[in-house]
Amino acid sequence: MIIEIITIGDEILTGHTVDSNSAYIAKKLLEVGLEVSFITSIGDSIEQMEETFRQALNRSQIIITTGGLGPTDDDLTKKAIVRVFKRNLIFHEEVLEDIKERYAKRDIKMPAINHNQALLPQGAKFFPNKLGSAVGLCIAENGKTFISLPGVPQEMKQLIDDEILPYLQNLSDTKNISVLKLRTVGIVESKLAELIKPDLKLENNVRLAYLPSYSGVDLRIISKGDTEDEALTKLRTLQSHLESAAGKYIYGYNSDTLEENIGQLLKDNDKTLAVAESCTGGLLGSLLTSVPGSSHWFKGGIISYANEIKESALAVPHTLLEQYGAVSEECAAAMAKGVKEKFDSEYAIAITGIAGPDGGTDEKPVGLTYVGIAYRNDVVVRMFNFGKDRISNRTRACYGALEMLRRDILDIT
Amino acid sequence: MIIEIITIGDEILTGHTVDSNSAYIAKKLLEVGLEVSFITSIGDSIEQMEETFRQALNRSQIIITTGGLGPTDDDLTKKAIVRVFKRNLIFHEEVLEDIKERYAKRDIKMPAINHNQALLPQGAKFFPNKLGSAVGLCIAENGKTFISLPGVPQEMKQLIDDEILPYLQNLSDTKNISVLKLRTVGIVESKLAELIKPDLKLENNVRLAYLPSYSGVDLRIISKGDTEDEALTKLRTLQSHLESAAGKYIYGYNSDTLEENIGQLLKDNDKTLAVAESCTGGLLGSLLTSVPGSSHWFKGGIISYANEIKESALAVPHTLLEQYGAVSEECAAAMAKGVKEKFDSEYAIAITGIAGPDGGTDEKPVGLTYVGIAYRNDVVVRMFNFGKDRISNRTRACYGALEMLRRDILDIT
Repeated sequence: MIIEIITIGDEILTGHTVDSNSAYIAKKLLEVGLEVSFITSIGDSIEQMEETFRQALNRSQIIITTGGLGPTDDDLTKKAIVRVFKRNLIFHEEVLEDIKERYAKRDIKMPAINHNQALLPQGAKFFPNKLGSAVGLCIAENGKTFISLPGVPQEMKQLIDDEILPYLQNLSDTKNISVLKLRTVGIVESKLAELIKPDLKLENNVRLAYLPSYSGVDLRIISKGDTEDEALTKLRTLQSHLESAAGKYIYGYNSDTLEENIGQLLKDNDKTLAVAESCTGGLLGSLLTSVPGSSHWFKGGIISYANEIKESALAVPHTLLEQYGAVSEECAAAMAKGVKEKFDSEYAIAITGIAGPDGGTDEKPVGLTYVGIAYRNDVVVRMFNFGKDRISNRTRACYGALEMLRRDILDIT
Repeated sequence: MIIEIITIGDEILTGHTVDSNSAYIAKKLLEVGLEVSFITSIGDSIEQMEETFRQALNRSQIIITTGGLGPTDDDLTKKAIVRVFKRNLIFHEEVLEDIKERYAKRDIKMPAINHNQALLPQGAKFFPNKLGSAVGLCIAENGKTFISLPGVPQEMKQLIDDEILPYLQNLSDTKNISVLKLRTVGIVESKLAELIKPDLKLENNVRLAYLPSYSGVDLRIISKGDTEDEALTKLRTLQSHLESAAGKYIYGYNSDTLEENIGQLLKDNDKTLAVAESCTGGLLGSLLTSVPGSSHWFKGGIISYANEIKESALAVPHTLLEQYGAVSEECAAAMAKGVKEKFDSEYAIAITGIAGPDGGTDEKPVGLTYVGIAYRNDVVVRMFNFGKDRISNRTRACYGALEMLRRDILDIT
């Protein structure tokens, strides 16, 4: 089954908005065994839409579009659909009533322009949008399935998760495709392969892919069978092999994140965490607090960007800073111990480094970073040499720190 | 001139990686007056590449691809180029020598596989890659310009900024197109339009677009003329009008960010800033420290995620928390004053709110956020009601806070 995603909006073609919608949809589809073959982005132009929709209908079986379903003059998707599928736009009273009700709940009178949201292609199936006024549409014709969703990311995600994925799973033969991603951290691809390859038997129609990311290497299994059971059985066999070979590096599956894993480990062990950040400036704290429920295990932290704050807020001795500097093993250790004590947490992470682009010297180049983990009376510090790019240095420092904490909690060497 | 971007990589089609390369390229091209018409993402498949390259050469004049230029078997772009353009891959000694030298500088022996990087299409122009081993390629034939760049974002950006933009500016008639984006904050689109529309005269071939984003509404001018001067003159005329009408809301141009603007204002006024974050968990600090040179004006902050930390680290009185709760005007004010005093900064920002998805009540729903700004002996607090989405609540809280600080520094009501 050939699947195509079309993301619509001038803001994508001008680079004003990064197209993250297609990545979300592609990822979610793959989790249920559906692989995307084409992703195209076009502007708010009926002619471009017509041409691109027709091309998609020629070459693909399932087409999913995002964008252009709003109530204004720039929203042209329905008009293009009507031209391509030769259907009328019909007014749907029940859709309008639903939109009015939602505005009423917020004590707002519905702006008149939203009447347009109730004008929908004849014969289309609708998917209710819980977070906005544009319903999702589906036209099934001649063996093709053409789905149009709103472009607002929250709304698109809710529709994909709650409506489209189940709909497509029913539609296609994906029950006999099983997909699983195992997420590893703390080991490079080549070493991971060395662990996995001995006695590795890839059965028929089972594929294994290595996918590097900032937080580590993901292993993705795609298994196809004549039946659902056969696909799943083959997947579980390979999964067992991977877990025996590399289990201690696996922190989660599919969309699990390392920060969620850390939260779970802290919660399971009834421990709390505090952070002391210099070069990362709060990025680690924001990563950890992006996990819902993090208030159960995350106390907070100190962003000690200026050296005087390392002294005043973290009790890092002035003489230590004079002797070793802020970017040093000694400073990382002192920062970790300092915040652990101040916040009375079981664990503490400290990060100090040179993110760049400036600030490097011959002895201490850009990318040099120290991460300290404090637990009970001990502190462990590790030195990293990242690269020259500020953004990736800061991100890699955070994930390096989470990886160190994970090893510490699980006592992995 | 029709321009098309093709991003190559299985990791895009599986949603493992968000395609941010195309947004970067599209944005940079537009800054020099070049508008992108098509963006397509395809997988690591020679057949798909051939088909997509041929289609692009049919319909566009300038094609820019990213990805597939590495040394491994999965890197197929050059092979597809050779098929489409019917040219041989020739070994280029000087390219190999350059790669060897770079590895030598890092005291590493070049892995043999990198020999492939010196195999390049005959007759192509090369653009040196300062950050990696894959040179950028350009084939000019039959009025078409086909450019292939590495997919690694840092490397692609360096090549675009230093080599491709100047090359394309020379190539095309873009000198007679002037583009400028004025970035506003603190005013909604409809009100901004109300300020701008009176006496607005759009000259021939001058377009004005309103582009909403998290941090506010951008105004983009695209002006075309018979000459460079004419285009620029018309642009400046419209710019003057916009600046008279809405000047106090304009914080920057093109890629300037609000956080950079805050940094500049603090630096110009010789002031420092500290932050106290609850629901944003460090996100505000990380935004501010993403600005190079922020150490000149940013002292750091306290991530007071747990209420006990608000008390212990920020001196928020226990009785205040009991009486008003952590998400309150009173708490925001106390947090701002607390961190200002502890960090001895001139300005302080405090954010406390309910990011969601849990934690809301009837009186205090998800999205309720208080931002406090402390300066000298005063504290100003503002209440926001964002939405239900955790990620966007946290981001909007940060930009709402930066906007409040900006008004405070500039004394704008």
